[in-house]
Amino acid sequence: MIYNKITSGILSSIKLIVGDDAVITSHTDLEKYSHDETEDLHYYPEVVVKPKTPQEIAALMRLCNENLIPVTPRGAGTGLSGGALAVMGGLLISMERFNKVLGIDEQNLQATVEPGVVTEEFMNQVAAKGLLYPVDPASKGSCFIGGNVSHGSGGPRVVKYGTIREYILNLEVVLPSGDIIWTGANTLKYASGYNLTQLMIGAEGTLGIITKIVVKLIPGPTHDALLLASFSTNENACSAVSAIFRAGIVPSALEFMERRGVEWVKEHDGIAFDLKDEIEAFLLIEVDGTNQDVIFADCEKINEVLEEFDCKDVLFADTSAQKEELWRMRRTMAVSVKSNSIYKEEDTVVPRASLPQLIKGIKEIGNKYGFESICYGHAGDGNVHTNIIKGLMSDDDWNNKLKDGIREIFELTVSLGGTISGEHGIGMVQKDYMSIKFAEVHFEIWRGIKKVFDKNGILNPGKIF
Amino acid sequence: MIYNKITSGILSSIKLIVGDDAVITSHTDLEKYSHDETEDLHYYPEVVVKPKTPQEIAALMRLCNENLIPVTPRGAGTGLSGGALAVMGGLLISMERFNKVLGIDEQNLQATVEPGVVTEEFMNQVAAKGLLYPVDPASKGSCFIGGNVSHGSGGPRVVKYGTIREYILNLEVVLPSGDIIWTGANTLKYASGYNLTQLMIGAEGTLGIITKIVVKLIPGPTHDALLLASFSTNENACSAVSAIFRAGIVPSALEFMERRGVEWVKEHDGIAFDLKDEIEAFLLIEVDGTNQDVIFADCEKINEVLEEFDCKDVLFADTSAQKEELWRMRRTMAVSVKSNSIYKEEDTVVPRASLPQLIKGIKEIGNKYGFESICYGHAGDGNVHTNIIKGLMSDDDWNNKLKDGIREIFELTVSLGGTISGEHGIGMVQKDYMSIKFAEVHFEIWRGIKKVFDKNGILNPGKIF
Repeated sequence: MIYNKITSGILSSIKLIVGDDAVITSHTDLEKYSHDETEDLHYYPEVVVKPKTPQEIAALMRLCNENLIPVTPRGAGTGLSGGALAVMGGLLISMERFNKVLGIDEQNLQATVEPGVVTEEFMNQVAAKGLLYPVDPASKGSCFIGGNVSHGSGGPRVVKYGTIREYILNLEVVLPSGDIIWTGANTLKYASGYNLTQLMIGAEGTLGIITKIVVKLIPGPTHDALLLASFSTNENACSAVSAIFRAGIVPSALEFMERRGVEWVKEHDGIAFDLKDEIEAFLLIEVDGTNQDVIFADCEKINEVLEEFDCKDVLFADTSAQKEELWRMRRTMAVSVKSNSIYKEEDTVVPRASLPQLIKGIKEIGNKYGFESICYGHAGDGNVHTNIIKGLMSDDDWNNKLKDGIREIFELTVSLGGTISGEHGIGMVQKDYMSIKFAEVHFEIWRGIKKVFDKNGILNPGKIF
Repeated sequence: MIYNKITSGILSSIKLIVGDDAVITSHTDLEKYSHDETEDLHYYPEVVVKPKTPQEIAALMRLCNENLIPVTPRGAGTGLSGGALAVMGGLLISMERFNKVLGIDEQNLQATVEPGVVTEEFMNQVAAKGLLYPVDPASKGSCFIGGNVSHGSGGPRVVKYGTIREYILNLEVVLPSGDIIWTGANTLKYASGYNLTQLMIGAEGTLGIITKIVVKLIPGPTHDALLLASFSTNENACSAVSAIFRAGIVPSALEFMERRGVEWVKEHDGIAFDLKDEIEAFLLIEVDGTNQDVIFADCEKINEVLEEFDCKDVLFADTSAQKEELWRMRRTMAVSVKSNSIYKEEDTVVPRASLPQLIKGIKEIGNKYGFESICYGHAGDGNVHTNIIKGLMSDDDWNNKLKDGIREIFELTVSLGGTISGEHGIGMVQKDYMSIKFAEVHFEIWRGIKKVFDKNGILNPGKIF
């Protein structure tokens, strides 16, 4: 596909649509929009706009379609796969002004929210009414809910409450043609033709730009308990994970953390934590519900399971301050790793009982290619973020040889029944590994679907496939 | 689209693929495959085959594609929208020989199952291992799980446990081209390109034929309680529904039944039940979990809510025999209605707080067009099955005038934020009403997607749109 550049004439048209104050063209101001949280990548769009209405976006889409200008939609730029990067230049549409919670419907336990609302702000507004929206990625304090939808984002509580797919009922979307549609209905059940809502979730902004989101809410839990269990081997920690479910417990979070990650969080965040020499891995386990006794009984059962896997120590968080501290340890791990070293993050996911083999295999691949890795994440879902640390690796090895190592990690992941991304999306960074998992017929179908929505291929080009 | 007939030459090729014993051509034997549970419709396929492997289906698809023969996949034929009817003739592929549970993976809480397994048989096998697959349509004793997936089927427990979309992890599918693919991965999280698993769910067998299903399982509840609440008005019963959720309770079932439905069940099934004159509607409410005290406490809270809505009586099922009897009342309602009168069933769904307006409006439309209706179903999801009774209506009114009445019901449903089907699918029966809810751009997208999978339009033609 050959795209055109944004000429001064097109720029004038853009300004007519959104107003001068919503247009950014200076290199300095574009910098902020040239990267996300993915490694060290920079791609400058030619122009950034900050529209306020679906109609403005529709007009921009028509203009760019007529002139074959690439359009990249962008949420908060917290993505980890480069999905919001304008890799072909062109127009970047920042959704930051779509920042209102339009309504919380307490009769129906639904909310309508714009895509540029920060996830945690939305969760807090909902919680103030005693309700729960449980999809909370680690970046919840800064990411936008629209980005979460577009990437099929998860978080710790998916393990109990289900994926984001279960909470998104309906979407208002601007299509590349400029048409504005609602994808479905504001109903809990929906069996009315191909499900376009589900197709948009995880489409990484390549099929349309989401402008309103109707979300299902549920009554929130009133009590919870948090345990930190320590193990002398990764394998014991990972093996305990599926045993907890087999004991009939569905925790509201079941997170795995490697020792090295905890060490770096201690350094970076100054979290006071007594890290014993023998400990190699941790499980952070949360149980929630509406009855304290049941939660205690669940904790007892979990304790029994942990003992079977040679758990060295269980720390029970007594106060909400302690709980916050333990959660902070887990949530800041990505930032701590980043501040310590150049790194790459791969979002590996396998059936949960295969976690021990996955982690073991990743370490072996690291030994072969000479890199250290730190694994942590949503063990209850079999979803572990594999952070590859540059450390002492040469630039040449890092930029070239490492690709083969990452390929081996994904080959292992796929051989264990897993896939290329659990919740970060494919974007541009994981794109090269898709052929490990998928055959040409998948690519043909995806390209076909893309073409149905976006015949000129203007929307978020260079992503997924 | 112009289709060809199955010639004797093509029939020979079909027999070569599946073997003579798997082919049905006699009119008498075809009768069974000419209808489903939808009204009084009959469409005879030219030939029925009962393949045993995905490879046989792939060969049939290639043959039919080359010769432009329509192919209709069929589960147990329990559908309520005509999705399994060979409306264009051609080849009907019965999935009845795909009847094996291939494995229950207790490590990962997953199962792999063929589409022709009866849903309840699968649930029982899973329950024997202390696990739960919660998607149980009223027809669970006879329907196939493959049909459930294809129609996005629900059932009473969706209200607590989520839709079938949350439980289907991966599908093996034979495409119209003859390619056999897995749509995704056996993982709980998946953010790896357009989600073809979700696209297949609810596609009513128009994009591919499902040959294997990977299902997520969860630890089952150990206790439950069942209440039957009686109300003197439909409105009070319906209004209580959303109040129960607002009180912080998520029941494992919350079913609405109109008096007339209960009367007919009493007659048809001889269920002993004291039906007081003043009662117009019932709610059947189930709560489940792992702790009896919590369940009792929830029942207490529910009782308090019910009192606010002038509930006349609450029957608490003391024994499992009583529970079974109450559930039988609800589950046999469709059959009882059918045995009493010619009827049509519309699968209306709205946001749950709009149920009172929906039921009231349906009665008003009935008065206008001269039909009686019996409404019952999954009130907790806002999903009510509206049974329109022929009763004394003339054949002419039934066959002609009634269409306008049904149209008004769907116009009302859509005006309340609802859609054309919650869990039965569109098939051929609801197709005419889709334009009430959807604009031309939706149809264009659906047709486009269909074409990506099935360029010659051979697979299940005449359905959805």
